[in-house]
Amino acid sequence: MDDGRGAGPLVIIGGAEDKTGDSTILREFVRLAGGPAADIVVMTAATTFPREVGAEYTAAFERLGAGRERAIHIAGREDANEPSLAESITAATGVFFTGGNQLRVTHLLGGTLADDCLHQRHREGLVLAGTSAGAAMMSPIMITEEPSPANPAVKIVEKSPGLGFAPDIVIDQHFGQRGRLNRLLMVIAEHPGYIGVGIDENTAIVVRDGAFEVIGEHAVTIIDARRMTYTNLDAPGQDENLALYGIQLHILPAGHRFDLRRHAPVLREGEAGHTPEES
Amino acid sequence: MDDGRGAGPLVIIGGAEDKTGDSTILREFVRLAGGPAADIVVMTAATTFPREVGAEYTAAFERLGAGRERAIHIAGREDANEPSLAESITAATGVFFTGGNQLRVTHLLGGTLADDCLHQRHREGLVLAGTSAGAAMMSPIMITEEPSPANPAVKIVEKSPGLGFAPDIVIDQHFGQRGRLNRLLMVIAEHPGYIGVGIDENTAIVVRDGAFEVIGEHAVTIIDARRMTYTNLDAPGQDENLALYGIQLHILPAGHRFDLRRHAPVLREGEAGHTPEES
Repeated sequence: MDDGRGAGPLVIIGGAEDKTGDSTILREFVRLAGGPAADIVVMTAATTFPREVGAEYTAAFERLGAGRERAIHIAGREDANEPSLAESITAATGVFFTGGNQLRVTHLLGGTLADDCLHQRHREGLVLAGTSAGAAMMSPIMITEEPSPANPAVKIVEKSPGLGFAPDIVIDQHFGQRGRLNRLLMVIAEHPGYIGVGIDENTAIVVRDGAFEVIGEHAVTIIDARRMTYTNLDAPGQDENLALYGIQLHILPAGHRFDLRRHAPVLREGEAGHTPEES
Repeated sequence: MDDGRGAGPLVIIGGAEDKTGDSTILREFVRLAGGPAADIVVMTAATTFPREVGAEYTAAFERLGAGRERAIHIAGREDANEPSLAESITAATGVFFTGGNQLRVTHLLGGTLADDCLHQRHREGLVLAGTSAGAAMMSPIMITEEPSPANPAVKIVEKSPGLGFAPDIVIDQHFGQRGRLNRLLMVIAEHPGYIGVGIDENTAIVVRDGAFEVIGEHAVTIIDARRMTYTNLDAPGQDENLALYGIQLHILPAGHRFDLRRHAPVLREGEAGHTPEES
């Protein structure tokens, strides 16, 4: 899989990030996009309140010292094929995707000129950020349904293709706050080649060079099913309870890093603990 | 550690088990205790409503075909040192601990004649069962506080010594229903020699011969921190968020078995999957 070497950083946010206080996460996005030299495009495609949400973010980015910021509202796929939108993306140093409904993002943008342009520019170094729905669509596999109850029956979680800027992971957002461990476990058990990344609210990962670092208030829960020894997800009969053997789980708060190539958290200098077995 | 070989089975229930319908779990307890030959003692020490709770269980056990059943109420430690209680335990083929407050069980029974007698008889084959508080006290390490919020700050979960009939595990009950993953993760990160066993409501494990099988409606979540590569639980400063690297997690519904000696789920004949790496 493409490990994103050379591509721009991704700032993937679990939703409900601080926009008016310290704004640790949005501030880091502005910094990565160039600070006073940043030209930021806010994509409101996910939300049905694009003007309100767009204004909220442009105000935040202005306050945080971005050089330029504007919101772009896409009402239909024809807008996403407008050359003027591609020009805005080409000029931008950072593109931010708001929350809303992730299917709106993929339905409006998937396969359009804007989509192509975003991928091309991201490969060339454009910084991309997304929160909530704007985070979910970063994965190639995008979760689209609400959480299942605790220890649910065997079923397939509803998913849809995302825009796939982060090729090796599946994102889940509002993670701890909405109790989404089980749905992410089920998706990763179904697709053990992907790392499951459950991001709490007001918390984000910054992905670059095949690794990510956690920033923000809470933590990120990482699910790795490569060593899974059994699941009944493919069992006949949909009334049986889920069984999963041999899942790896990591919890990383701010400042902690995860190596997507080695599938392991990065031990920091001076930390106790031996070399991870994944190495 | 004592692996319980030769000891009587333990039926450890996550709370809220069915008492009036099929009663899969209580029925299995009665069967293990001898069915029509069973002599069952219901210990109501955990609850402040001993007569009501005791009557509910004796009615259930009678309906399920036990030969004899009676509730024993202990109001103080002097009751737990009465030779007549030890005689009842010695005559019993099964002892059932109700829900309530687990600290009441350990405060009333710990170090008494009844406690000694229960351990002695359990080693000789007596079947023990407990639900909710009566499940929590089965571990040597008994969790006594309410769940922490999602991805909590580093802190030590409040615990107390349990009666310790199940030597290698730490039980958590009402597990999925009350979102207790984080508190069990923290306890096991602190005590990686123990297997964390989170039992859902109306679900139980039957422990014998160094293994357990899941019975009932939902599932059991197993936490194994033997391969943990890092935690900040012992870090100075209590405001940092919890970090945990390298936790193993298994989810086992009814019919699935876990080998406490090998620390691995037991793959059943005909199941897909390779031999677990833990073997």
